[in-house]
Amino acid sequence: MLDYKLLEALTAVVECGGFERAGEALGLSQSAVSQRIRSLEVRLGQPVLVRTPALAPTPVGRRLLNHARRVQLLERDLRQALPTLTSEAPRLRIAVNADSLATWWAQAIGPLCREEGVVLDLVVEDQDVGLRRLRDGDVAACLCASPQPVAGARALPLGRMSYLPLATPAYRERHFPEGLMEEALRRAPAIVFGPHDQLQHRFLASCGYHGPFPYHLCPASEGFVRLALAGMGYGMIPRMQVERQLEQGELVSIAPGQALEVPLYWHSWRHSGKLIEQLTDALGAVSLT
Amino acid sequence: MLDYKLLEALTAVVECGGFERAGEALGLSQSAVSQRIRSLEVRLGQPVLVRTPALAPTPVGRRLLNHARRVQLLERDLRQALPTLTSEAPRLRIAVNADSLATWWAQAIGPLCREEGVVLDLVVEDQDVGLRRLRDGDVAACLCASPQPVAGARALPLGRMSYLPLATPAYRERHFPEGLMEEALRRAPAIVFGPHDQLQHRFLASCGYHGPFPYHLCPASEGFVRLALAGMGYGMIPRMQVERQLEQGELVSIAPGQALEVPLYWHSWRHSGKLIEQLTDALGAVSLT
Repeated sequence: MLDYKLLEALTAVVECGGFERAGEALGLSQSAVSQRIRSLEVRLGQPVLVRTPALAPTPVGRRLLNHARRVQLLERDLRQALPTLTSEAPRLRIAVNADSLATWWAQAIGPLCREEGVVLDLVVEDQDVGLRRLRDGDVAACLCASPQPVAGARALPLGRMSYLPLATPAYRERHFPEGLMEEALRRAPAIVFGPHDQLQHRFLASCGYHGPFPYHLCPASEGFVRLALAGMGYGMIPRMQVERQLEQGELVSIAPGQALEVPLYWHSWRHSGKLIEQLTDALGAVSLT
Repeated sequence: MLDYKLLEALTAVVECGGFERAGEALGLSQSAVSQRIRSLEVRLGQPVLVRTPALAPTPVGRRLLNHARRVQLLERDLRQALPTLTSEAPRLRIAVNADSLATWWAQAIGPLCREEGVVLDLVVEDQDVGLRRLRDGDVAACLCASPQPVAGARALPLGRMSYLPLATPAYRERHFPEGLMEEALRRAPAIVFGPHDQLQHRFLASCGYHGPFPYHLCPASEGFVRLALAGMGYGMIPRMQVERQLEQGELVSIAPGQALEVPLYWHSWRHSGKLIEQLTDALGAVSLT
């Protein structure tokens, strides 16, 4: 079998972000950790970590990490069957889209994590990047809008999140006094999550507008809402994230009645052990609207 | 002088995240955009973009982008002096730490952005990574906790954000019924922003605890608060982000009276034009507590 001491050192270096801290976490000296990484690289004949621009696993390193995490998950099931084995908190690395993380995610999986003593290593990624991380073995599961499972994994539909085109009342008054006229859409600053964000484009297309428009880029869910609340632009915001602001009239729709629905899917490896099954069950019980 | 059509194409490809969309934004065909990028690479004798794993500028590409952005800022001042030059919304790329973006940032700079019609390209980075982006010329300014200016830039102190060790009352009762005992700190799951987050370690050190502890990793401000609210762990949260939850007793301190203060600094290039000056003035007027 593999020498799991070496894989444990690799996991610690990546999770702790450095050799010194990995040593602290494992109760080893920094040079002992380096030694283990070196052994791993000598056996493989290639590096498992790159040092610049930042410490990160190589593709081979990522495969080893993924393997180590899956073994850890299986070990957890074993520990439950054999409680005299000392137990430590199982760690689950999961890619979650930013808007779910900012809204319903923690409520849905919190009870299970509390009961099972699971700790999560959350990676914030939307769509394709999250799935690529799953395929590369960097995460054990992925929550995103893509329905297409990667090979060896399955995709469970969880429902839909509803996005509304929102701004402050003052912003709507200033930029759209006569509604969504083409000239107004050309000039009104929007807020867009990132260069790959399709929601703003889908909204404009649904208005019949295909031209250019000024936009803020803000790749953080809460910051996105704050920009809208500061009157800096209008943007597609999940209804459930701003229910209070909608009730209090701090945010209003610039196109009342119009909403975009984004489906969400939970992607996980088959045969990843009981914990992933339980998490999948907890998510399956969520009813998104 | 440089051929700015080529730099404009490079800027568009990076900002739009692809050749096709860059073409749409510039009113060019995709092949015309590719042609311009190729011309740039032929002149330089090296690539300005990498295509895998994702489309991104090379270090040389980043230098060109930075130059193009600084020229755009200077052009903006020129356009104000010569209003007959057609104007377009100036775009400012800025690195902001996640917690500021989730709290006070938009309120502070919103009025100026509205008045001047500025759109922002926000990059969420903490600490050293934001400053590295400034040094590499990837952003025009950076808001972070580091006081040390990079060469050619200046650092303006903006005050401090106050972080409290917070959890739900039920979590505190379950994990710390007798206060912050060593054994409790060893077992209670914490929430940590990322592997380079120092706040949790500083808090534990201030409690005299230096051992291992289980923790969730959650690199998103709002998600971090949601994990705490779901009772999944305790974590260092900016007081200003959760004032409502503190008032309503949904979150409580596990170490009443204890807070960590994190200073914030605004780093910007000298001689970057009037807009950066105005933004600096707007931020200088903020009083963080």
